[in-house]
Amino acid sequence: MDVGGVRRTVLPGGLRVVTEHVPGVRSASIGVWVGVGSRDEGPTVAGAAHFLEHLLFKATPSRSALDIAQAMDAVGGELNAFTAKEQTCYYAHVLDEDLPLAVDLVTDVVMNGLCRAEDVSVERQVVLEEISMRDDDPEDMVGDAFLTALFGDHPIGRPVIGSVETVEAMQAHQLRSFHVRRYRPDRMVVAVAGNIEHEHTVELVYRAFGDRLESGLEPAPRREGKFRPRGNPELLRIHRDSEQTHLVFGTRAFGRHEGEKRWPLSVLNTVLGGGLSSRLFQRIREERGLAYSVYSSVDTFADTGAFSVYIGCQPENLGRVASLARGVLEEVAANGITDAECARAKGSLRGGLVLGLEDSGSRMNRIGRSELSYGNHRSVSETLARIDEVTTDEVSRTAASLLARPFGVAVAGPHRRTRDLPAAVRHLVP
Amino acid sequence: MDVGGVRRTVLPGGLRVVTEHVPGVRSASIGVWVGVGSRDEGPTVAGAAHFLEHLLFKATPSRSALDIAQAMDAVGGELNAFTAKEQTCYYAHVLDEDLPLAVDLVTDVVMNGLCRAEDVSVERQVVLEEISMRDDDPEDMVGDAFLTALFGDHPIGRPVIGSVETVEAMQAHQLRSFHVRRYRPDRMVVAVAGNIEHEHTVELVYRAFGDRLESGLEPAPRREGKFRPRGNPELLRIHRDSEQTHLVFGTRAFGRHEGEKRWPLSVLNTVLGGGLSSRLFQRIREERGLAYSVYSSVDTFADTGAFSVYIGCQPENLGRVASLARGVLEEVAANGITDAECARAKGSLRGGLVLGLEDSGSRMNRIGRSELSYGNHRSVSETLARIDEVTTDEVSRTAASLLARPFGVAVAGPHRRTRDLPAAVRHLVP
Repeated sequence: MDVGGVRRTVLPGGLRVVTEHVPGVRSASIGVWVGVGSRDEGPTVAGAAHFLEHLLFKATPSRSALDIAQAMDAVGGELNAFTAKEQTCYYAHVLDEDLPLAVDLVTDVVMNGLCRAEDVSVERQVVLEEISMRDDDPEDMVGDAFLTALFGDHPIGRPVIGSVETVEAMQAHQLRSFHVRRYRPDRMVVAVAGNIEHEHTVELVYRAFGDRLESGLEPAPRREGKFRPRGNPELLRIHRDSEQTHLVFGTRAFGRHEGEKRWPLSVLNTVLGGGLSSRLFQRIREERGLAYSVYSSVDTFADTGAFSVYIGCQPENLGRVASLARGVLEEVAANGITDAECARAKGSLRGGLVLGLEDSGSRMNRIGRSELSYGNHRSVSETLARIDEVTTDEVSRTAASLLARPFGVAVAGPHRRTRDLPAAVRHLVP
Repeated sequence: MDVGGVRRTVLPGGLRVVTEHVPGVRSASIGVWVGVGSRDEGPTVAGAAHFLEHLLFKATPSRSALDIAQAMDAVGGELNAFTAKEQTCYYAHVLDEDLPLAVDLVTDVVMNGLCRAEDVSVERQVVLEEISMRDDDPEDMVGDAFLTALFGDHPIGRPVIGSVETVEAMQAHQLRSFHVRRYRPDRMVVAVAGNIEHEHTVELVYRAFGDRLESGLEPAPRREGKFRPRGNPELLRIHRDSEQTHLVFGTRAFGRHEGEKRWPLSVLNTVLGGGLSSRLFQRIREERGLAYSVYSSVDTFADTGAFSVYIGCQPENLGRVASLARGVLEEVAANGITDAECARAKGSLRGGLVLGLEDSGSRMNRIGRSELSYGNHRSVSETLARIDEVTTDEVSRTAASLLARPFGVAVAGPHRRTRDLPAAVRHLVP
């Protein structure tokens, strides 16, 4: 397959390798994408996918954590990983000449990382520190809480990082079994972008995976899922002695495979809270000075999604800010957007897309994610053409249907009881 | 002048334009660098440089804030600014074809931004929100507090953002006078990098500045300064009901123009806390799981600087963590670093430098900063060669002299009195 510069080879065992040559760069990025995330965990092992991602860096049969760190530091590369609700990605960004090292290191960590009990107990402390850090970052914390408010005890609603309780209880054998059962080549995509050449990259990956490619499996189908809501969106209040109150509210939105709805939603998101000229930014910050940070965003999962607004403000302004933001959403739900807004938002998405794809890291992300989530690729020009087709009307219809859905709300700040919250916040939820 | 691809033209009025063509990109970044920052403020108007940076975006004679935002959003570009202790930069990142718009917009904001009283009162609220946000971010807050602990009431020790008191008292006429007196073309550098051409860029800048270039001045000399310490480094404790305690400690270090000391210092910083294989990361996180985030960093000003270590940990581990970190610094001060560490750190700096200069934004930053701070340019290969020359011995000598200096300390967390802090923290200061 070869779409818009993306080349794809399926290795034995169902391992997919996708590459893209990025002209003009001297670097290479490799990511091993595993189609496993926090939504695949049972509630008692919440945080396992993320814990495992930490643990695999601690040792492989041939390398200690220090060996791994030294090998990457010696070439000035970056080696890291992240865990999300539906996937986990281990990646490195290096000079092109160091690609063989990067492929070998990342593959070794992902496939051969040990789950030793002594490492689990040290790394448990690190993950608990990470939870504390998230709790000290009100914007992060309220973001996690919002998805819980919106999805309740559905696995999508659980924080990726797990909870203090589940992390404290996590056992080496549980992580080992999660690793063995879930990290199979047919569920993985190796994405490589930069100053690289496809056949050579495939050869490097083939050698690094070695006998792990002997299963004779085909690539696993993409994640589809069928979202079954559990209960209605709620309001979650978290008490913090913070200077600002942090508010997130929004609705359930579209899944990745729900037709073409994501394009008008992207435009809508841009018009509402995507930039300096967006309605929320203008109304709340520019005209009234009620916030420093105010924006909207979209999360997309296989079978559901979320549209949300974030605002940080003084506790005494919370009611006013919530009314203003809700008013912006209601106006657009009732009257739609203007042609000028639609044109500007499309220009913004077009420019942002092209500007955001100049480095090998973002290219690697794009093709890895696309292969794992969709099983296919769209060239940048196809995407640009698709954005161009969005009409004002489509966006207005999307607004009318989406923004009529019930809101979930999360708020973190000094309010000690839910009834102390201003009515404008309490009444966001039905 | 033409060094390593950097081209430089001095326009009438002393305005410098430096450009660099970046092969393979379709974007352009423009930054207008003004050699003015928070250290140029009197104590009663602390935060004026940063407040002004906000205010100039609110209106120019020909554009409202909304016009400015819409013009940039329509092409999907990024428009922003930052204020530091010694400079202020207004920048945009756009597709190459939009460079004329970007030059015009950024110049209009910087040179013609109005300081209207009604905008001051709205933007005052936004800046106060930004202060609250900083206060809710313990890592940010403790970083600001550390420079105060290290430099006392010297202007370098004051937070760039000012204080609630000074921001509340700030008047339009003070900001207007700061603007008129300080924002002169001879103290400015326009830096442009990307898919651009030097002569064309100079022409765009010349047109955008128009009659502001009639002063007949030469470029102002680079900032030299002569640091006169006021008092000794101290310990600052800030009470926060946070989950983690956040500790920063370190010493005064070298000014930008103190010979070639910054190269061994970079290597030393990398060995101590610059990456996953660094001594601090290994000792505190990897071996003992006592922190998630632990690193060292270097700040450089014209005539002084700072070397510091940051660690976030559980409050009950603070004493142990402080002892471990201090131990790492003392070992290196006493015994120096190894040849293997020196080689690895140099590799790390080399790789990081090349990987960090692939996009037009980072190139623009590099040449703008270099022109303003040094008045000259070093090609990437010259810099790589200079890194290569650093010897183990130089680094060990730097460690011995630098780490013997008295420590300043800032700590934010649930400790309510300084005497509640563990002795290992209290005894960091002499």
